[in-house]
Amino acid sequence: MNPMKVGLLGLGVVGGGTWAVLARNAEEIARRAGRRIEVSRIAVRDVAKARSRVGDGVEISTDGFALVRDPAVDIVVELIGGDTLARELVLEAIAQGKHVVTANKALLAKHGNEIFAAASARGVMVAFEAAVAGGVPIIKAIREGLTANRIEWVAGIINGTTNFILSEMRARGLPFADVLAEAQRLGYAEADPTFDIEGVDAAHKLTLLASLAFGVPVQFDKAYVEGITQLAQEDIAHAERLGYRIKLLGITKRRVDGIELRVHPTLVPAERLLANVEGAMNAVLVRGDAVGPTLYYGQGAGEEPTASAVVADLVDVTRLHTADPGHRVPHLAFQPDALSDLQILSIEEVSTSYYLRMRVDDQPGVLADIARILADRSISIGSMIQQPARIGGADIIFLTHEAVEGNVNQAIEHIEALPFVRSKVTRLRMENLT
Amino acid sequence: MNPMKVGLLGLGVVGGGTWAVLARNAEEIARRAGRRIEVSRIAVRDVAKARSRVGDGVEISTDGFALVRDPAVDIVVELIGGDTLARELVLEAIAQGKHVVTANKALLAKHGNEIFAAASARGVMVAFEAAVAGGVPIIKAIREGLTANRIEWVAGIINGTTNFILSEMRARGLPFADVLAEAQRLGYAEADPTFDIEGVDAAHKLTLLASLAFGVPVQFDKAYVEGITQLAQEDIAHAERLGYRIKLLGITKRRVDGIELRVHPTLVPAERLLANVEGAMNAVLVRGDAVGPTLYYGQGAGEEPTASAVVADLVDVTRLHTADPGHRVPHLAFQPDALSDLQILSIEEVSTSYYLRMRVDDQPGVLADIARILADRSISIGSMIQQPARIGGADIIFLTHEAVEGNVNQAIEHIEALPFVRSKVTRLRMENLT
Repeated sequence: MNPMKVGLLGLGVVGGGTWAVLARNAEEIARRAGRRIEVSRIAVRDVAKARSRVGDGVEISTDGFALVRDPAVDIVVELIGGDTLARELVLEAIAQGKHVVTANKALLAKHGNEIFAAASARGVMVAFEAAVAGGVPIIKAIREGLTANRIEWVAGIINGTTNFILSEMRARGLPFADVLAEAQRLGYAEADPTFDIEGVDAAHKLTLLASLAFGVPVQFDKAYVEGITQLAQEDIAHAERLGYRIKLLGITKRRVDGIELRVHPTLVPAERLLANVEGAMNAVLVRGDAVGPTLYYGQGAGEEPTASAVVADLVDVTRLHTADPGHRVPHLAFQPDALSDLQILSIEEVSTSYYLRMRVDDQPGVLADIARILADRSISIGSMIQQPARIGGADIIFLTHEAVEGNVNQAIEHIEALPFVRSKVTRLRMENLT
Repeated sequence: MNPMKVGLLGLGVVGGGTWAVLARNAEEIARRAGRRIEVSRIAVRDVAKARSRVGDGVEISTDGFALVRDPAVDIVVELIGGDTLARELVLEAIAQGKHVVTANKALLAKHGNEIFAAASARGVMVAFEAAVAGGVPIIKAIREGLTANRIEWVAGIINGTTNFILSEMRARGLPFADVLAEAQRLGYAEADPTFDIEGVDAAHKLTLLASLAFGVPVQFDKAYVEGITQLAQEDIAHAERLGYRIKLLGITKRRVDGIELRVHPTLVPAERLLANVEGAMNAVLVRGDAVGPTLYYGQGAGEEPTASAVVADLVDVTRLHTADPGHRVPHLAFQPDALSDLQILSIEEVSTSYYLRMRVDDQPGVLADIARILADRSISIGSMIQQPARIGGADIIFLTHEAVEGNVNQAIEHIEALPFVRSKVTRLRMENLT
């Protein structure tokens, strides 16, 4: 049988990895896919550089549109990133009747609805396993492996850079800025790390996971996004003493009245597997009503781990493109005409438990006044610790039971107005994950 | 579109769970599959009992063959267990052109080659996600999610009963027999627990994982199988002090000269996620050359977790049965005409590191003589601890570097023949899992 012909848009880190894996494991991949999968054409900015990497025998040009319109290309792999040119190329590839594989979470988190609709109308597949958690087949797991379930929630460590930073902050007792600098030196963080450390990258991925889990359209603009730049080393240490680890989690939950969609630092009980995922690794915990909790773990970034997912998608397309397009695996797990209209809830409506830390004057009645403010807003206290601060006064930490965030915000405002409260209240969210 | 009609063979634990999940999540499943999936016919031994469970509206009989021959049935779900009648029914269903879903690992471990060949010839799908690790989509992960990779090894906790027993033995310091009795009381172990505690169930599953990972035919009879019945509580305690946990692992590795296929108690570094999988949970670690290590975790047994996998397979068949049968996802991950002829290695040829414990007289020269026996067989010692035994003499534990099992067996024979060695040598295998 003829080989499946692949056009590669971009030959950077992931593109280079895809080339390398397809070449090295060509025989084994063909034994799995039933035919060879070959890169026949590449579009890049620097042709000479690409030529030096892949040698002769592959057409290389700077013209991405010529590639997506080439009748000899069966599948277009988009690895150029960004959401302007990438969007145009992907839509043109679809219009040309090509299947598309992409690792571009930003593109899909913003333009996924448009892209998937175009693909469904044209009867082509858009595969994006590499967009979330690198080589871990988490999209396949949710979209195909857990289809029996009413999925209840998904909680994941889906950004390796921030997990590396948090792991180092805890293990070595260092502040955020120092560890970030080191992460940049080691290549775990980019020169401009904003997208990672502010939680935006995780929110892109979480947006896709929420759609796959609950059958809602992609709605990145409704996600609550809080990164780790404000996280103090002392809160990591307090959490540890209380039996918790702090992880940057993407969390999405289905409630009767809507869907929670949020990325933020989260206290997790230290004995959970998720709490023990260290360094740049990724892990996603998915809870279904039939299967219970399941967890998926592996390298969430890097040249070959990400290429592993890209190539798996190429094999998937090769195996499945002949299936009836109307009933083939839907892009977002649910049939396009059967999406849910459940709304994304605002962060004020989120319900979870909280870690609240504040510095107070060490005088009688302090605790009573704070406890009253919390009680008046239906926030019950699970536990409390108090310890003298080095420079006078005391630090109090409350761990609350489940409460509504809007109420917690009100309570914080009132607590901060108390005359004996010397600091802003540090507020972190907690998840039990059972 | 017409519903997909399912015939259920068996309505025991998993069959009942499948019925319940299909009913409860019918709407959500239809939104994913693009059409409804309905049980239209059931075959059981006790019709009245089944009728009381499922109500009217479903045809129930005792005749499995009538069910698999019913033209109105699209997919046959085999949940009766065993490998005699189940084999005949599955082969007849295939002959009738039906797709088959089964949770029967014993059947596939023994008759998988025959069954998959028949299915390929007839162009039907035989799906078996429920056969390994319950609701965890590990078969899908290896067969479809990691297709880019040359898989190097798979190591898994794939029997919940034994993991529960080992977890309790460690946590509570109790001997095997006591914990087994409790596990039976709690329903974690069957009245006749032989298949679980002797490692046979794990070996059935591992046999399937090896075929999926390496593209070799199913060869259960070549698997090395060692259970946990001989495992002493004191070795769990020693392992803990040395920084290890003991887990019953199914391990399969690809080497240049063949494939290792073995189930046995294994020392694993305590900091590995796999070492921290407790109770009746399952977890499988898969290492691919591109993706690195990936881990899949969840409930490996039970009514609804197993049903989760059965129903996911029903959705898969519904989505994919229209794809070209010659290129659709192959049953064992590799195209049937592209299987490998790599041989399964005997346990004597296995290469790993070892934990060796023995009781000796406390006299000079003991260590030198034992070390010499090991060195003569190219077994190098990674570490050693010695401690006085309560009833005189001393216990010595060696942790070796990687060595060939045949050499280790010879060394053990010579060590046991030494005049100052008072006990048999306890030999456990170790895996670093990186």
